[in-house]
Amino acid sequence: MVESSILADGIYPPLPTFFDEQDELDLVTLRRHIQRLAETGIAGYVVMGTNGEAVHLTSEERAQIIETARDVVGENTPLLAGCGEQSTRATIANCQQAALSGADIALVLPPFYFKGRMDSRALIEHYCAVADNSSLPVVIYNMPASTGGLDLDAATICTLAEHPNIIGVKDSAGSMVKLAQIHAETPARFRVFAGSAGYLLPALAVGAVGAVAALANIFPREVCRLHELFLEGKLEEARLLQARLVPANTAVTVTYSVPGLKAALELTSGYGGRPRSPLLPLTEQERKQLAEILRRV
Amino acid sequence: MVESSILADGIYPPLPTFFDEQDELDLVTLRRHIQRLAETGIAGYVVMGTNGEAVHLTSEERAQIIETARDVVGENTPLLAGCGEQSTRATIANCQQAALSGADIALVLPPFYFKGRMDSRALIEHYCAVADNSSLPVVIYNMPASTGGLDLDAATICTLAEHPNIIGVKDSAGSMVKLAQIHAETPARFRVFAGSAGYLLPALAVGAVGAVAALANIFPREVCRLHELFLEGKLEEARLLQARLVPANTAVTVTYSVPGLKAALELTSGYGGRPRSPLLPLTEQERKQLAEILRRV
Amino acid sequence: MVESSILADGIYPPLPTFFDEQDELDLVTLRRHIQRLAETGIAGYVVMGTNGEAVHLTSEERAQIIETARDVVGENTPLLAGCGEQSTRATIANCQQAALSGADIALVLPPFYFKGRMDSRALIEHYCAVADNSSLPVVIYNMPASTGGLDLDAATICTLAEHPNIIGVKDSAGSMVKLAQIHAETPARFRVFAGSAGYLLPALAVGAVGAVAALANIFPREVCRLHELFLEGKLEEARLLQARLVPANTAVTVTYSVPGLKAALELTSGYGGRPRSPLLPLTEQERKQLAEILRRV
Amino acid sequence: MVESSILADGIYPPLPTFFDEQDELDLVTLRRHIQRLAETGIAGYVVMGTNGEAVHLTSEERAQIIETARDVVGENTPLLAGCGEQSTRATIANCQQAALSGADIALVLPPFYFKGRMDSRALIEHYCAVADNSSLPVVIYNMPASTGGLDLDAATICTLAEHPNIIGVKDSAGSMVKLAQIHAETPARFRVFAGSAGYLLPALAVGAVGAVAALANIFPREVCRLHELFLEGKLEEARLLQARLVPANTAVTVTYSVPGLKAALELTSGYGGRPRSPLLPLTEQERKQLAEILRRV
Repeated sequence: MVESSILADGIYPPLPTFFDEQDELDLVTLRRHIQRLAETGIAGYVVMGTNGEAVHLTSEERAQIIETARDVVGENTPLLAGCGEQSTRATIANCQQAALSGADIALVLPPFYFKGRMDSRALIEHYCAVADNSSLPVVIYNMPASTGGLDLDAATICTLAEHPNIIGVKDSAGSMVKLAQIHAETPARFRVFAGSAGYLLPALAVGAVGAVAALANIFPREVCRLHELFLEGKLEEARLLQARLVPANTAVTVTYSVPGLKAALELTSGYGGRPRSPLLPLTEQERKQLAEILRRV
Repeated sequence: MVESSILADGIYPPLPTFFDEQDELDLVTLRRHIQRLAETGIAGYVVMGTNGEAVHLTSEERAQIIETARDVVGENTPLLAGCGEQSTRATIANCQQAALSGADIALVLPPFYFKGRMDSRALIEHYCAVADNSSLPVVIYNMPASTGGLDLDAATICTLAEHPNIIGVKDSAGSMVKLAQIHAETPARFRVFAGSAGYLLPALAVGAVGAVAALANIFPREVCRLHELFLEGKLEEARLLQARLVPANTAVTVTYSVPGLKAALELTSGYGGRPRSPLLPLTEQERKQLAEILRRV
Repeated sequence: MVESSILADGIYPPLPTFFDEQDELDLVTLRRHIQRLAETGIAGYVVMGTNGEAVHLTSEERAQIIETARDVVGENTPLLAGCGEQSTRATIANCQQAALSGADIALVLPPFYFKGRMDSRALIEHYCAVADNSSLPVVIYNMPASTGGLDLDAATICTLAEHPNIIGVKDSAGSMVKLAQIHAETPARFRVFAGSAGYLLPALAVGAVGAVAALANIFPREVCRLHELFLEGKLEEARLLQARLVPANTAVTVTYSVPGLKAALELTSGYGGRPRSPLLPLTEQERKQLAEILRRV
Repeated sequence: MVESSILADGIYPPLPTFFDEQDELDLVTLRRHIQRLAETGIAGYVVMGTNGEAVHLTSEERAQIIETARDVVGENTPLLAGCGEQSTRATIANCQQAALSGADIALVLPPFYFKGRMDSRALIEHYCAVADNSSLPVVIYNMPASTGGLDLDAATICTLAEHPNIIGVKDSAGSMVKLAQIHAETPARFRVFAGSAGYLLPALAVGAVGAVAALANIFPREVCRLHELFLEGKLEEARLLQARLVPANTAVTVTYSVPGLKAALELTSGYGGRPRSPLLPLTEQERKQLAEILRRV
């Protein structure tokens, strides 16, 4: 079992998956994007998260993405790969494949299609089966906005934190009450990450050690700087920077989602491309509004 | 393009997918189940719907299920196959595979992972792309309970009904207002099906021509009888039968979901088995409550 | 205790409360409106429902409205008065005042401010206390859209139906499954009314005996005709009329709500006026859209 | 117009309204409760908030409560009174009465019965009309859990903050993203208060200056201490205390609500009593669970 120290504190951008004009994987742009981020202070990378359009990819594509990312980031930077599927067996298969392809940690979204039956007992059995059968350590990925409102509660997460192969949680639900409780009631080896840069500062205040933050694809230095300001005790500066990042963060996560993240990369860095259908690229008007929001950061 | 008359009026059970003790496909039981249903008055079959645990199956398994079902049901009975995926391209691939495997009609759940971006425009582009590229005619499958609340509205469905290869809708949202509107504003060739036996009678009253109803796996004759009573104008009898079916219907769809459907088959017909994880089989107490509800039908 | 036969089958318009230019009660217009409705086939009237802006009125105003309505409608037409308040004691006081002012039946919305504590037990205690202390018979008014999603379930309503002074339910939740179940599991003296003309036909199909329908303020003859067609077994005609009424019904209930109902009265009958603040009258554009929808009925 | 400096930074307990065995106001216990809180470090008091069961009180009772509280707290301690009603005119009347009775500041919940029509424009017109006509300065009270999910967004609150008589917001929605944005985009005179002790620390981190916190009725010193630790920069201690307070806070706000707050007072201080119906007192089992949670603080 990999040591949990592999999951360093800090900021992890969830990398987009880039597609070329034929709607096929564009791994060249993925390399370019990772290289651009490499010197900005980030702690590691996530592939196949929500922003990586994991649900739009085949198994083969997933493997290629992990292999490519591993190749660029080098051995000493943590690489998390989204592995959640609707069935337990497919999730385990993903974890095994992710290990073979070079990932360090499996980020596991809960199954949610049968949400009405996903009570705490079912979720605990699922995650424990995955953690038992995964050679990679597991980070829980709680994201109600994408899972039809399924929201792992503090008690469930605290129970799962006792499993030796479950080493942390990325929580995108935004409840500081829950984060405070998880931080207080789990062993020190269990790490709590905010799932968005929009509440990075308050999450750090209650015990988070970093974030998986889409905004770090666009403004990696600023998001990392916010983390540093907190660590240095410069709360007033941190507060100003946090507030400054909120509108752009809301734009690329909530309002415009993945198409917005890609458009923001186009606008700031000259690459990005379209998401796969059914996601549509931003309309011209949305693109202008996004540009205006980014300009104000 | 297949004629829409292939989609006969009437009752369609969405077949469960059976698994053996090694958690692998149990096609023998699938055959047995279809044979039991064959003489009960049903109009056709659905495979890989929600009750078929489509989200727990591989592509290969899906093909095997369609082939097996086709083999048992014969040429003249409509066979619908669930084909919806999160990406447009994977949905189209499923439709093509379903055609090769012998299905007659593709039942297509909307993509919902990026629900916040699935506005009417995105959904229309998605469904039209699927319908353009599918050799099978398409039936829209609206099911907010499984798609995080994504609920196709009447206007979107009416627009899609203009596509020559989109021939109907199975609506599991339960709004009679919407069904009435869709029935009134779509061409006669476009068929509306209730997505549950729980509101079959009121749906027929506003223009539905049948139902895809999980309960028809357990009580096929009774569900078909309800349809007949309506057609014969025996509304008072229909009302009594409708009310009698509601508690069992709620049990196997909402309260106990797929594990409940399988337990109900065990209780009434001696086969059923467990669902795939993370779905858990009913607890002993749940099973007793279900048995009591079934006894009262 | 009044006989439940006072609650005749049929269509009940929930009357708007009219205000003059000084934002005070306009009882002259109320009289005029009732007189216009009198010969249209309706079964009775509701005052101080949602459409009567009950939450915008003082106790004195409520009494005046009941007295005025009683005076115009005469002795033999059922007059229901909305009496629900957040506290049990204020609800009882309203029922007593409504009796003194001349109402026949108390229509009681559940308390919902402390929704998280309003479980079945609390709701049953509340309604029984009200029914025990009200000289008027009680009709339950279930309306989740106005009560923060609080939705009385079938079991709660069936339990309440055993109270001798609770004689019916007006259900605005729109679930035909629930209406079917309530109709089947309550004594014949307990009457079920649809809470909207949008699903009148399917509600009648499962056992409702009429509706409290905002649309009956605008199109009383058409809504009554729909009821008659059902009673005469002319289902195909009923289906056409039902579908024809849906868009206008949606406009004056969901889309434009009470301001839309008043604007529709202005457009069709030359009176209506503004709602009380914070409700705003329709914008010019909304008014045009509404006029277009009404024109198509 | 009162100076906004009257709204001191710090912790404000929202006082329960106590009732005697005849279900009438128990002002003696109210005095006793205020006196107990007086020396604990709190900044001021709120009467007729959610915890004061404002929706269960008559106008006369409201006036008596304000007068009593004013009498006990003295002239120099801020006294906020809940004044929100469903109509604009009744809200204004409440503000005027609250001023006459001795309150310093009006805490105004948005109208929500017609939630579907309460867009930003309607809410801004409502609040501005109230602020224009209230001799008391206004604090916005955003509380989606009690207002059927109506959640004032940052843009609406920032617009309202420009009104000279609107001096702050108590936000019980729990979104730190929103608090950060409001703090950053409003003038310094506009104060942001957390609506719960459950996220006091993270709220302070993003710019809140205190809280209206039900838990401060039970543990006033601990809640004030949490505020102090933050001000002193002792973040690690603050984090521990925050986490320690979460379970008790969740119990008296979410799980057991007002009946839980009263039971907690009984358990810790020997007074409390029952809430008015339809709120039920805790069951014996709930009371034991609550006692256990309080013991662990």
